[in-house]
Amino acid sequence: MTDEVERARARERAADMLADAGVVLTDEERDEMEVVDYGLGDLESVGTEIVVYVNDDRYCAKELVLFPDQTCPEHRHPPFDDYPGKRETFRCRSGEVYLYVEGDGDDSESSDEWSVSPPMREEFYTASEEIHLEPGEQYTIPPDTRHWFKAGGDGAVISEFSSPSYDEKDVFTDPKIDRMAGRY
Amino acid sequence: MTDEVERARARERAADMLADAGVVLTDEERDEMEVVDYGLGDLESVGTEIVVYVNDDRYCAKELVLFPDQTCPEHRHPPFDDYPGKRETFRCRSGEVYLYVEGDGDDSESSDEWSVSPPMREEFYTASEEIHLEPGEQYTIPPDTRHWFKAGGDGAVISEFSSPSYDEKDVFTDPKIDRMAGRY
Repeated sequence: MTDEVERARARERAADMLADAGVVLTDEERDEMEVVDYGLGDLESVGTEIVVYVNDDRYCAKELVLFPDQTCPEHRHPPFDDYPGKRETFRCRSGEVYLYVEGDGDDSESSDEWSVSPPMREEFYTASEEIHLEPGEQYTIPPDTRHWFKAGGDGAVISEFSSPSYDEKDVFTDPKIDRMAGRY
Repeated sequence: MTDEVERARARERAADMLADAGVVLTDEERDEMEVVDYGLGDLESVGTEIVVYVNDDRYCAKELVLFPDQTCPEHRHPPFDDYPGKRETFRCRSGEVYLYVEGDGDDSESSDEWSVSPPMREEFYTASEEIHLEPGEQYTIPPDTRHWFKAGGDGAVISEFSSPSYDEKDVFTDPKIDRMAGRY
């Protein structure tokens, strides 16, 4: 488990990266920043730091921070009840992002074509289509589409614009992952 | 009318303000930036410069730029058909914004309480509730609510997160205003 000292340090580091990207936070946003280790307990390699600006029944906006080479593990946003599933647009603000999205090549030895490697438990990374994002570039991921992403060596700041987020409904490819476990 | 030379100059100036706020644009986004004079032909005092990142059937995200003391005139986003009207969150990124929203005091001599003055045609500015936004601060405006906003003396960059935008459905208090007139 990622302990409180490590979480506080992660918040400070992510806030510094946001400041370098020109993003101003309130003190409250800084204090409440979500530090997600997905229950794997190795935040540096598998984790995401998240500031939620707004998440209501109509839309959602966040900043996502990835430390150097940090990965957000593969998952999808499925439909449920009357909700068609989350659609999301990732816009790179600083650093660079390697985004992998479900594609035609998913049954092949897709990892041969990846520019970066999954962090661990590689068998749970299957999406084959690589999208490389630099500052000012963006990509929209349809609902219910497997995807994962990893920062380059300088880390990354990503603005996410989307339909409402219901994190507890996310389905991760790795059965060991728990999105909601110890996320603060 | 705002001519093409003035529009091109406005795009360049707004792009510089965005760059100073840490916002990186693609060349295409810079070229396609919307310069809106609302048909009043006095862009410097009544106008908005807009970069639309995404606007689909589920959500919308934009950057709004206001030059020093520039005003976005009073309007509302009414419901139509099955659409409940646009809800929008303004987040100040740089500069400062004076936002006025429909409130209980709208029937009084509300202008006495405003920190800044409407630019012209003052009779068409009626919203009385003042919200002052500095970098990192944000405010969400419900659908069908009259609002207008003006930048402070250094201009402002505002991120807008919202439900889908249907600009052609906007209703302006000033009947002379045409949102769609010569907006590029």
